[in-house]
Amino acid sequence: MDVRGYVDANAAEFFTALKDWLAIPSISADPAHHADVARSADWLAGYLRQAGFPIVEIWPAGEPGAPGLPAVYAEWPASAPAPAVLVYGHHDVQPVEPLDQWDTDPFTPVEHGRQLIGRGASDDKGQVLFHVLGVRACLAASTGGPRQAPPVTLKLLIEGEEESGSANFAGLLRHHRDRLACDVIVVTDTTMWAEDVPSMCTGMRGMIDAQIDFCGPDSDLHSGSFGGAVPNPLHAMAALLAGLHDEHGRVTLPRFYDNVVPLSAEERDLFARLPFEDKDWLAAAGHSGAAAGEAGYSTLERIWARPTAEINGMWGGHTGPGPKTIIPRAAHAKVSLRLVAHQEPAAVGAALREYVDANTPPGIEAQITFSGPGVWPCRSDIRSPAVRAARDAMQRAFGQEVVFTREGGSGPEAGLAGILGAPLVFLAVGLNTDRIHAPNEKVEMPLLLKGAESAAYLWDELAVIGKAGLAGGRGGDQGGGRTGDRAGGRYGRQ
Amino acid sequence: MDVRGYVDANAAEFFTALKDWLAIPSISADPAHHADVARSADWLAGYLRQAGFPIVEIWPAGEPGAPGLPAVYAEWPASAPAPAVLVYGHHDVQPVEPLDQWDTDPFTPVEHGRQLIGRGASDDKGQVLFHVLGVRACLAASTGGPRQAPPVTLKLLIEGEEESGSANFAGLLRHHRDRLACDVIVVTDTTMWAEDVPSMCTGMRGMIDAQIDFCGPDSDLHSGSFGGAVPNPLHAMAALLAGLHDEHGRVTLPRFYDNVVPLSAEERDLFARLPFEDKDWLAAAGHSGAAAGEAGYSTLERIWARPTAEINGMWGGHTGPGPKTIIPRAAHAKVSLRLVAHQEPAAVGAALREYVDANTPPGIEAQITFSGPGVWPCRSDIRSPAVRAARDAMQRAFGQEVVFTREGGSGPEAGLAGILGAPLVFLAVGLNTDRIHAPNEKVEMPLLLKGAESAAYLWDELAVIGKAGLAGGRGGDQGGGRTGDRAGGRYGRQ
Repeated sequence: MDVRGYVDANAAEFFTALKDWLAIPSISADPAHHADVARSADWLAGYLRQAGFPIVEIWPAGEPGAPGLPAVYAEWPASAPAPAVLVYGHHDVQPVEPLDQWDTDPFTPVEHGRQLIGRGASDDKGQVLFHVLGVRACLAASTGGPRQAPPVTLKLLIEGEEESGSANFAGLLRHHRDRLACDVIVVTDTTMWAEDVPSMCTGMRGMIDAQIDFCGPDSDLHSGSFGGAVPNPLHAMAALLAGLHDEHGRVTLPRFYDNVVPLSAEERDLFARLPFEDKDWLAAAGHSGAAAGEAGYSTLERIWARPTAEINGMWGGHTGPGPKTIIPRAAHAKVSLRLVAHQEPAAVGAALREYVDANTPPGIEAQITFSGPGVWPCRSDIRSPAVRAARDAMQRAFGQEVVFTREGGSGPEAGLAGILGAPLVFLAVGLNTDRIHAPNEKVEMPLLLKGAESAAYLWDELAVIGKAGLAGGRGGDQGGGRTGDRAGGRYGRQ
Repeated sequence: MDVRGYVDANAAEFFTALKDWLAIPSISADPAHHADVARSADWLAGYLRQAGFPIVEIWPAGEPGAPGLPAVYAEWPASAPAPAVLVYGHHDVQPVEPLDQWDTDPFTPVEHGRQLIGRGASDDKGQVLFHVLGVRACLAASTGGPRQAPPVTLKLLIEGEEESGSANFAGLLRHHRDRLACDVIVVTDTTMWAEDVPSMCTGMRGMIDAQIDFCGPDSDLHSGSFGGAVPNPLHAMAALLAGLHDEHGRVTLPRFYDNVVPLSAEERDLFARLPFEDKDWLAAAGHSGAAAGEAGYSTLERIWARPTAEINGMWGGHTGPGPKTIIPRAAHAKVSLRLVAHQEPAAVGAALREYVDANTPPGIEAQITFSGPGVWPCRSDIRSPAVRAARDAMQRAFGQEVVFTREGGSGPEAGLAGILGAPLVFLAVGLNTDRIHAPNEKVEMPLLLKGAESAAYLWDELAVIGKAGLAGGRGGDQGGGRTGDRAGGRYGRQ
């Protein structure tokens, strides 16, 4: 029996198990459900043991006195010298409010045609579980007959706090760094372009954000008595924020673009081939305007591969109804900067501080407060052996070309790569239409089976490439894998 | 007996009467005190009749169904052809909260050394009442023996809604325009530079204000998925507001300075001679920074005689604790423009609208909402016969030079001048240290007597100048007096 045959033959059993797991409301953001998160970890541990993983452990997260929610770790060593692969996913889920917008109970999973509906079906339980079906298919369908161990050493780290900020994730990685050592990290928590356009994510943006406070007089001043003769913190803030971009839409912070890895011609060509129309994308976002941004880049390039500065909030002075003729005592703004490889969050933060200092007029006092150390950007080299192997595996499973995409958002994956010092590969079959984080979350069941099939092919391909081949192809392109322990921080997905 | 002798001889009786009046809590902003505002009007009417005014009326304000608070009108015609003078003041007072910060009961007036303490002592009952003592002194102390009528036709209009926005004032003026006809308007509701630096206000700034709303997407967008590729309303707003001034601190609205009457060399010289230090003024305002504003002007020139654009408030997006990585759906700002003669509020409003339209990027929808028609600026020509007469009168009373000042704020006085078509003269003896609108309001009793003396001299001087002399000297300099009914609106003092 080949991989596809095995996957199809075991599909019904797989979905029955998945439905069992989805029935556990493992909402990490809600303390009332923390026992359910523990139950979810136990369920997964049991399922992995049953599937044959010789090592399965529940890893508590957090510190004594400030415990977190458990992760599940499983390991299945290869029988011969082979690369080690770490699969990352999470078993906690988003809250389900507003409940009245669900057509079915979020924790009573229901099959509807090709879809399985329930919280966590796509994000991320369905995508975690296809790896179990994948490794079983890989073992069963070997051309040399069934095997006792996979062709690579397979490690699974399934987090329990991803939907509530991954607060203890970096600590967990550091604590278990030796056991998590690997040659490739496979992240299974992203999406494809569309059901009929299979794709592979090759990067996520990083981020650093801060609040900027400008203080002027001790209290609001009458704008008749003082207007036009003292610095107004709101004017200063408007000028500061307006100056963040030049007339070409480029960010003006010092050294901002110095380390940015430019898009290769191949990447630009691949992005350009995606079926994408600005106007459809804007309409889907409820934006009746035009796309706008850094000159010389397409919309997809802007959101996937170019760094940005966005004002997320701004306030000061009178914000209620009617007029109030004051010069306010203070002005405030929240600013976030999305980063791409190889920008460093701390260096960009320092540049923002420098910019604020240089643009604070006399008579105004500035304060800048970063909400955390930031998130590193990550990027897979599309010419690296691991990415090529994963793409080949997916192409074999899907029977068509797999294109490359990126994600504009930021997640804990870069921390994973940074702390463990291994390159990332994104292997996932979720869709943007899966309504993750929203009512009526669903997953396309045939896609989970394609995911299992892809994983099964991938392990064999990585084994053929071997440890040396994977190490040689890494290069300096892997933003998340350049140095050791410098990422992490308190961020979850944003 | 000369004027000063009469004033001094009747001072005790005058202060006894003033204390009676101050005991009436005529707080126009508080409906619970509206009956007291009516009592205050009745008290004043009675006092004016007793002083000899042959015509004394209570004028209800407002419309049937939306009544306002009563004004007091009194008239004492000159016995021979003479100029008519309208004295403007108000008999309502500010609220008294926070009560626990008063050292004495606000409506139990107390003499403390040279000071009389109580709500309304300076703003404006004390300053209204000195006119009654003034006209009696003028009659009693004539060189030709006591007179039965003043040398000018004296009209008093004492409003009851000034401290709550003068909502019905323009209507009142229009309704009684014929009876209020006059050659000069004397406003008695401002302040002097200092007790030892007697001064006369020669102008107030006008104002127009608006709220500007920028709308982008239908709802907040994720800054990871959209950041850098769609217009951000906060960026657009920051740029719009930052662009309101050029690098010299000048307002960039089209045609903004076209009609501005420049300061004369004499005015600049007079301002420069005032004992004023930026650092003391900033310290008093609790502003530790430096003065700043339009290049080429002193602080006093900037706040008194130059127009401004001030952002009074600004908001949009996430304003709570912590980060929220969104591109907000909207951004908002409140902007007010202080105007000087001969800027027209409506024209400046139109220029602001034009500026907003020209600086709204594609993809953003702008809305601009004016809170009202605005307030006209007003300015007295310091070379006009009326201003020179008033200055001479004050110099005679104070026995020293009287300097010229202005006020940076805006008030209903310009409406008065605009609707009645007469020039303004500011004759007042309040001080900036009188704690008006604040706990422990006080007035310097000797200054009220100087005010009475000044008024007594002024009526004789204006009679000598005559109607023709006053009309000839008006010129085009009187910002508030150029045309007929174009001012008013819903503004009170701001």
